[in-house]
Amino acid sequence: MARPTDEDSAAAAVVDLLGVLAYGELCAFDRLADDARMAPDLAARAAMSAMAATEFGHYRALADRLRELGADPVAAMAPFVAAIETWHTLTEPQTWPEAVVKAYVGDGIAADFYREMAGVVDGDTGRLIGEVLTEEGRAEFAAAEVQAALARQPALAGRLALWARRLLGEAISQSQHVLADRESLLRLVSGAGDLGALSAIMGRIAERHRARMRDLGLDP
Amino acid sequence: MARPTDEDSAAAAVVDLLGVLAYGELCAFDRLADDARMAPDLAARAAMSAMAATEFGHYRALADRLRELGADPVAAMAPFVAAIETWHTLTEPQTWPEAVVKAYVGDGIAADFYREMAGVVDGDTGRLIGEVLTEEGRAEFAAAEVQAALARQPALAGRLALWARRLLGEAISQSQHVLADRESLLRLVSGAGDLGALSAIMGRIAERHRARMRDLGLDP
Repeated sequence: MARPTDEDSAAAAVVDLLGVLAYGELCAFDRLADDARMAPDLAARAAMSAMAATEFGHYRALADRLRELGADPVAAMAPFVAAIETWHTLTEPQTWPEAVVKAYVGDGIAADFYREMAGVVDGDTGRLIGEVLTEEGRAEFAAAEVQAALARQPALAGRLALWARRLLGEAISQSQHVLADRESLLRLVSGAGDLGALSAIMGRIAERHRARMRDLGLDP
Repeated sequence: MARPTDEDSAAAAVVDLLGVLAYGELCAFDRLADDARMAPDLAARAAMSAMAATEFGHYRALADRLRELGADPVAAMAPFVAAIETWHTLTEPQTWPEAVVKAYVGDGIAADFYREMAGVVDGDTGRLIGEVLTEEGRAEFAAAEVQAALARQPALAGRLALWARRLLGEAISQSQHVLADRESLLRLVSGAGDLGALSAIMGRIAERHRARMRDLGLDP
């Protein structure tokens, strides 16, 4: 067998990136659809169900792109199933405000990670990733729902801030597992794999997390 | 207050019909997303998740139409929540083949009921209802999954046929509750409300049910 070239590993990295994103979106669909059942009213339930349907649209676009590149979406997703399922299992919301914070803050953290990796891939794939990572309207919805919950129960603020910190911590922990496991992705985030680049990324992700917490009116 | 005119009651019937359909689609989204978790592999899970996302698209189109008609979607859906939730609670699939049969046969029965009512409403609404009731590709998916399950376990055929009969029975029972409750809808299905028309409809629905069972390779 020929030795893999740089081009081969770049192609493998793109398939890995699309694979982890695709499974992330399929799970986001599934979890948001599940969490929508906790909504206090039909309007809120429909709003969170709409987010789930949007994530499925993203999944479909990513799976299509994988097929265009000659990759099987199921095979591309397989290496990332465990890490993403673990993340969701460790961050299962128990209340509607927790579900809302997860939908905004948790999916936001995931999007930040993917964005850090998307900058270096080819034009079409990069553009597609940019499209599937938009969070249009989600901040407004989350802020309104969190403010409504805090108006009823001000003591919730501290609990929700802790919850958001847990979302961040578990996301960092699972992404480290993924990066330790998939050298191709590690190289995407860190160039030659140096740890300085990685720690700069973590710093940027933490900064964006604080901005989202401020959006929600929660102390970061 | 003015006495309601025939035009008023026709408008009320359209809002009722769009309301029951909208809640039906929102629930179908929710239940299919939930049932997708039982899928034996990622490809099947993605396929059922795709059906769920499609149902949500239908929900959105129906809710938009309600708003165009000056109606509040949440208020329009409210009268039908209990009957539709009851139907789903009484027909909760316990296995993947049951989920697949429900996705095809159960949603097909519901579509048949709505279609019977859709013929008499105005052009735009009638066309929209026709669009949201298409079941494109679902028969092929369901037949393939049922055949795969029967290949592994031939004895399942009898159990799945019974399950499908239960789906039909519970659908008839819940739709009778709805019609008894909403005169506007009863008038849509039966003209002046005569029982002959209603029993002809039940006959047509049973006939289409048998056709779907044949599609699945199950004895009706």
